[in-house]
Amino acid sequence: MAKDQTPNAAILVIGDEILSGRTRDSNLHFLAGELTRHGIPVAEARIVADDHDRIVAAVRELAARHTHVFTSGGIGPTHDDITADAVADAFGRRIDVRADARALLEAHYATRGTELNAARLRMARIPDGATLIDNPVSAAPGFTLENVHVMAGVPEVFQAMVAALLPGLRGGAPVLSQTLTLLRGEGDIAAPLSELVRDFPELSIGSYPQFRNGAFQVSIVVRGTEGARIDAAMTRLAARFAEDIA
Amino acid sequence: MAKDQTPNAAILVIGDEILSGRTRDSNLHFLAGELTRHGIPVAEARIVADDHDRIVAAVRELAARHTHVFTSGGIGPTHDDITADAVADAFGRRIDVRADARALLEAHYATRGTELNAARLRMARIPDGATLIDNPVSAAPGFTLENVHVMAGVPEVFQAMVAALLPGLRGGAPVLSQTLTLLRGEGDIAAPLSELVRDFPELSIGSYPQFRNGAFQVSIVVRGTEGARIDAAMTRLAARFAEDIA
Repeated sequence: MAKDQTPNAAILVIGDEILSGRTRDSNLHFLAGELTRHGIPVAEARIVADDHDRIVAAVRELAARHTHVFTSGGIGPTHDDITADAVADAFGRRIDVRADARALLEAHYATRGTELNAARLRMARIPDGATLIDNPVSAAPGFTLENVHVMAGVPEVFQAMVAALLPGLRGGAPVLSQTLTLLRGEGDIAAPLSELVRDFPELSIGSYPQFRNGAFQVSIVVRGTEGARIDAAMTRLAARFAEDIA
Repeated sequence: MAKDQTPNAAILVIGDEILSGRTRDSNLHFLAGELTRHGIPVAEARIVADDHDRIVAAVRELAARHTHVFTSGGIGPTHDDITADAVADAFGRRIDVRADARALLEAHYATRGTELNAARLRMARIPDGATLIDNPVSAAPGFTLENVHVMAGVPEVFQAMVAALLPGLRGGAPVLSQTLTLLRGEGDIAAPLSELVRDFPELSIGSYPQFRNGAFQVSIVVRGTEGARIDAAMTRLAARFAEDIA
């Protein structure tokens, strides 16, 4: 697959709770791993507050520059759930309670004897032209509008929506990776690593230092779509630093 | 303090390892909490790949819209450490090895008998006009250029740099918060919560659902700078949902 045909993605997490430090994100981390395995590399991620204008601006910018945008959060029944309306606005679409989404909620709450009140009915607000994303956990659907996939923030629901959505998206060649951890500082390995980068231009080679027990070590991560090339790079790296492998 | 005088912040995390799902971010989460407590609310966060143009674009956009931008990652000695040059480019500044940063590295490595090789010397590349941020862990400094604070990606170093930097930044009134968790779905509490939002416009009131043991519960987080108003809102909330408090 030519490089310019490889799909890519942006992730947009919507929620004050991440930006205040109250909650540590898990959806972005989960989805980044899933997309990488599916061959849709993530080029950028953003976290914005529950603010209409910021969501609209981020959706427009990210949708224009990426094959796919995946959002997390802000599609529940409360006052701070404003993502669906913001995504509709970003594309100039009308949004209202839609019959198909309403039917899903009616069926779900009927079996539980729960009232489908005005707040819950807000979760059936779907932009014109969007297709629904199945929510097997709690019925209220996500949706896809243009190249933007709008999903819930609750991790159990988010993960179920990703599982429903991802098989239908065309992935590129899966990205494979191997890691070698060396008991050396990055400064010792930088020069040989640059040679490796030069000799394997088709691979992505990253150097990730960690601080353990008062000393630096470094993990070299080699990623690419051709397993044989990754093997060749790792073999050379392991031979060069045989005495330093963790 | 008038609302338009309240400082705000953006966080920019630079690193392929977060976007590939290999590493779960911790610096963004840590800094978001520190800034919130310091009275500098975080309005947006971004994670971009180790890509010069993406870093330059993100720095320019975020610096123009926020009081402060804090970056994490990409200032080590290897080929994928390109943040310092990108930040210099974003502001049109010259960048080269600077004597003060070089002196810090020389002193640090001399005591360890470690060679200050060409790769390590890259960590003394500092843009013209920048002030250094102290690194008590491993010497290689961060820097502040204009309103952008450039720090390391290794969490131990990042946290030490934040500790060195933050006391010197003017904070707004500290944001206080209280949380009440209710054993109810969001759909049950949405209407009374909207009344609370209407009656306490100076507070930020968020509703964060969780899925536990097959049922939804919800945490209501009330945030603001006036403790008495937060108390009043929480008291009303607790009275309204007395039977549902977790």
